[in-house]
Amino acid sequence: MEISVIKIGGNVIDHPENASRFLQLFAKFPGKKILVHGGGVLASRIGKAMGIEPQMYRGRRITDRETLGLVTMVYAGLINKNLIAELHTYGQQAIGLTGADGNAIQSVKRPVTDVDYGYVGDVVQVNTQLLESLLQPSIAPVFSAITHDGKGQLLNTNADTIASEIATALARKHKVNLYYCFDKTGVLMDANNDASLIPLINEDIYKELLRDQIIHSGMIPKLENAFNALAKGVVHVWLGLPENLLLASKGKNAGTIIESQKYGLY
Amino acid sequence: MEISVIKIGGNVIDHPENASRFLQLFAKFPGKKILVHGGGVLASRIGKAMGIEPQMYRGRRITDRETLGLVTMVYAGLINKNLIAELHTYGQQAIGLTGADGNAIQSVKRPVTDVDYGYVGDVVQVNTQLLESLLQPSIAPVFSAITHDGKGQLLNTNADTIASEIATALARKHKVNLYYCFDKTGVLMDANNDASLIPLINEDIYKELLRDQIIHSGMIPKLENAFNALAKGVVHVWLGLPENLLLASKGKNAGTIIESQKYGLY
Repeated sequence: MEISVIKIGGNVIDHPENASRFLQLFAKFPGKKILVHGGGVLASRIGKAMGIEPQMYRGRRITDRETLGLVTMVYAGLINKNLIAELHTYGQQAIGLTGADGNAIQSVKRPVTDVDYGYVGDVVQVNTQLLESLLQPSIAPVFSAITHDGKGQLLNTNADTIASEIATALARKHKVNLYYCFDKTGVLMDANNDASLIPLINEDIYKELLRDQIIHSGMIPKLENAFNALAKGVVHVWLGLPENLLLASKGKNAGTIIESQKYGLY
Repeated sequence: MEISVIKIGGNVIDHPENASRFLQLFAKFPGKKILVHGGGVLASRIGKAMGIEPQMYRGRRITDRETLGLVTMVYAGLINKNLIAELHTYGQQAIGLTGADGNAIQSVKRPVTDVDYGYVGDVVQVNTQLLESLLQPSIAPVFSAITHDGKGQLLNTNADTIASEIATALARKHKVNLYYCFDKTGVLMDANNDASLIPLINEDIYKELLRDQIIHSGMIPKLENAFNALAKGVVHVWLGLPENLLLASKGKNAGTIIESQKYGLY
């Protein structure tokens, strides 16, 4: 089958109106689809109310035991279940999952090197059979960024990575496209100018952009994830504003398309 | 098919060792099964850390907007996902659900009468088709006590009621038994003496127990739920200690069995 994996960032869903607008588009998005969501902004806010200060290292959250409890509550409980309830009102049946549910995504606790990220998981296996069985009667699986290690331990996992791991696992048998919705029109030549959109990136263009330091900091792991997904058989990766998601699904050029030059269609 | 619906109270799962002991039994419990769990004790504790004081009326939680957020986080996130991850280690595949997921349980906000319970739901519909499809490949659905109204609103819902509503909905097509695990050996003649167990209750015995005020306060809604389930086709309702659950599944008399005298087997 043809499957779209769509990731929505915490910045978008932190604003109820933005979340609603996105969910309406997601409901209209054609075909089989899987949603992966973040939630770091709300987790930090609720953590503060509980006296848990966010600890970050290079833009990634350090997850001690308390923080793991916090993100499990906020991602898998508060955010996920409200998204599911709202999707229902737009006619979209959905089921909220973590990696623990039906052993959907198994991960391994990240080894301690120079940094101890704590209870953070790196994905090792995606249960594609479970996803296929849910997608068949047109239920959209909606993942929060929590996985488990198969030994009873939940693990906080980067939502971008979850999206790309789900996409690549499904790409072994299916035609999969991957969509990253965030707060920019796409990958930009100038981060402060939404009009400086780069419409297409392939391996060669990526190397140039890296060399010229046009792509840096947080955008690098996003694009590494994207090229990793392409190398493993994902057809296209798209990055852009959530409101352009439907245009993107119709092949309209409203964001950045990342494709392998080996199989490029554009 | 033959289905067991098992409810476990918040008092039991609030202690990690007790929860673990119960989950091991649940994993060994034969046949198709559905778990429903509470979590009020932990919700109250985490609420206090966030400055949310529990408000109760006749043993039921009053759920304002803040409290709804709290119980959604704690029940559907923290407790549910940790139960699921631990069940996996005992060889039990499980999938954590609220009523919103796959529109599993739809409820209606309780009308305001002399008391305004707030965001509390009374169950109106159970999606038995979804449950049947999950039970077929031997995944145990694990419900936290959150439902939705189909209009985007999550609602806090009594876990005992959820268990009996699931059981009665499935009883229309299947042979269903309902098990309530709590912190007593069963229904007792004397609440302070675990040895005063009443092994069997039917309609006539229930009337006598009510008349003699042996059954009172919190036990009345539990038994009303039970008889309601029997009236709608559930085979047996069992009440007892979680550690006696396997004995109960083998028809051994370790707890209170509630049955209709019309169809009584005991």
